[in-house]
Amino acid sequence: MECKSYAIGIDIGGTNTIFGLVGPEGNIMTRDLIPTRGETVDDYLSQLAGALRRMIAESGAETAAIGGIGLGAPCANYNNGVIEDAANLPWPSPIPVGEMLGNMMQMPVSVSNDANAAAMGELIYGAARGMKDFILLTLGTGVGSGIVCGGRLLTGHRGFAGELGHCTVRDGEKRPCACGRTDCLQTYCSASGVAVTAQQKLARRISGINGRDNSNQLRLLGNIPLPLTARQVCEAADNGASWAREALEQTGEVLGKACADFATFSDPEAFILFGGVAGAFRHMEGAMRRAFDENALGIYRKHVRFLTSALPAADAAILGAAALARAD
Amino acid sequence: MECKSYAIGIDIGGTNTIFGLVGPEGNIMTRDLIPTRGETVDDYLSQLAGALRRMIAESGAETAAIGGIGLGAPCANYNNGVIEDAANLPWPSPIPVGEMLGNMMQMPVSVSNDANAAAMGELIYGAARGMKDFILLTLGTGVGSGIVCGGRLLTGHRGFAGELGHCTVRDGEKRPCACGRTDCLQTYCSASGVAVTAQQKLARRISGINGRDNSNQLRLLGNIPLPLTARQVCEAADNGASWAREALEQTGEVLGKACADFATFSDPEAFILFGGVAGAFRHMEGAMRRAFDENALGIYRKHVRFLTSALPAADAAILGAAALARAD
Repeated sequence: MECKSYAIGIDIGGTNTIFGLVGPEGNIMTRDLIPTRGETVDDYLSQLAGALRRMIAESGAETAAIGGIGLGAPCANYNNGVIEDAANLPWPSPIPVGEMLGNMMQMPVSVSNDANAAAMGELIYGAARGMKDFILLTLGTGVGSGIVCGGRLLTGHRGFAGELGHCTVRDGEKRPCACGRTDCLQTYCSASGVAVTAQQKLARRISGINGRDNSNQLRLLGNIPLPLTARQVCEAADNGASWAREALEQTGEVLGKACADFATFSDPEAFILFGGVAGAFRHMEGAMRRAFDENALGIYRKHVRFLTSALPAADAAILGAAALARAD
Repeated sequence: MECKSYAIGIDIGGTNTIFGLVGPEGNIMTRDLIPTRGETVDDYLSQLAGALRRMIAESGAETAAIGGIGLGAPCANYNNGVIEDAANLPWPSPIPVGEMLGNMMQMPVSVSNDANAAAMGELIYGAARGMKDFILLTLGTGVGSGIVCGGRLLTGHRGFAGELGHCTVRDGEKRPCACGRTDCLQTYCSASGVAVTAQQKLARRISGINGRDNSNQLRLLGNIPLPLTARQVCEAADNGASWAREALEQTGEVLGKACADFATFSDPEAFILFGGVAGAFRHMEGAMRRAFDENALGIYRKHVRFLTSALPAADAAILGAAALARAD
């Protein structure tokens, strides 16, 4: 057994906090969860620390073999270990969770947001093993990113590196973003972005049939309830619906164009797609690669790989968090 | 005297190769040059090695105190020390200059392109001393960039990181770029990009006077010869010409918008402008900051500094190259 080759991964969600003890090869040896609640954040973290100690004791692992704790949470800052402004947690921010939990457990705690944790998870245990330079894009409720350069996670001056979901796309249609700006990448490539694109395709299809846009008829076409979800778009594409396939191809095209610009920054070996929308990779891949090659500077064309996460969806959050503990 | 705190910096230009011995504080103790020519690249590098040995001997510095050699050259790849496809050198590419010169001098040789060298120069000796995360933009014949994250130069998977001059701008007018694409940042913010913008402003001014575009009249307005150069635009702006000021403000606006997107990547502490066009910083600064704050995600607004190079123009190439030898 290699010394310090175990790590604890914790993922703080709005409802539950899940955690596990991860072995050197990325095997989750034991896992558990507690509700994300408590009178104060101190109460909550004390419960979490107790549950972690029980988990370690029951696993039989030597505490000395555990290199540290990695913790993924929304709005968590790698540079200072603080959860800043997390709207879905029941305690006031900022929460210096790294320092608090570190004191309770007497172990180093590395903290970061979900996208950075996912990138580290792929680097240590997943699709990016052996890579030094790649960009992970999480395509879910929003679009996040984790950027690894020279084998290290980019964190930035104040801990806010890797917000590529808020890069603006070229030649956009001025889609409003939750951040208050328009045409952020996530307005096209998040789950809701995909749904908006699909509804546009469907509306155009129906208006093409009867010469006018009639959203009531959208409801009738194949009994698809509105508003659409990204999952429904993926399923419709799987079943051969051309409007759904076109929507996902358009999503791939927007992504490919954006990646062509991202390549000028860090010359990555690969882009790795993660999250719900990445499940439709097969419908996006062709358009994405085409758009990348058509829009990238010559030195990057044909050289960059497009991959999806290699981590089991149910394990990814714990593995990503545990990988933070193994970052340089 | 600190051990290994001296470095040799070499800048290979199309006409001359300049080099110097640089002390720990960035003082160039001695410098010299040889023509960039020779029957073969081996002949040229033998001459260069001889000149370096003479320089070291005459300086009185201990060879043991010299940490290494840094070499800046167009199209030089940091990852493998090879000059790839340099059109302005008289020998066929690729040239494994790092290995060849390293063998001749029995010293480690770090090789990179001019923009990366400039970034390292600012980091070790200039405006970025003490910073860990910044982006340097060279605004000259083209637009290049050197990106430092966590105190390290980004080099990328194949050594092509930091080509931000070829990021595409939003809402552009489809300006053709030498790379074959359109609307690359450098078509607006290089010296020739500034000149094109200024000619547009001037043409509109004249067409406003007599109701039509007449480029002959451009020639008459203030006896400015055409085509304009960026230097003439800067001088005209200094002298209060509104068309020149507007052109530089528009350049600043394009830069500020681009930097708003670049911030989402690496959350830099500062953008540092370098090269000829950076000499017009005072005319660009206001528009650049405004465009940055208007276009950046909230977490970056008001937090990023815009600076110019702190290295004397005549020393920058040698200092930048020498700094490469001191990179991690």
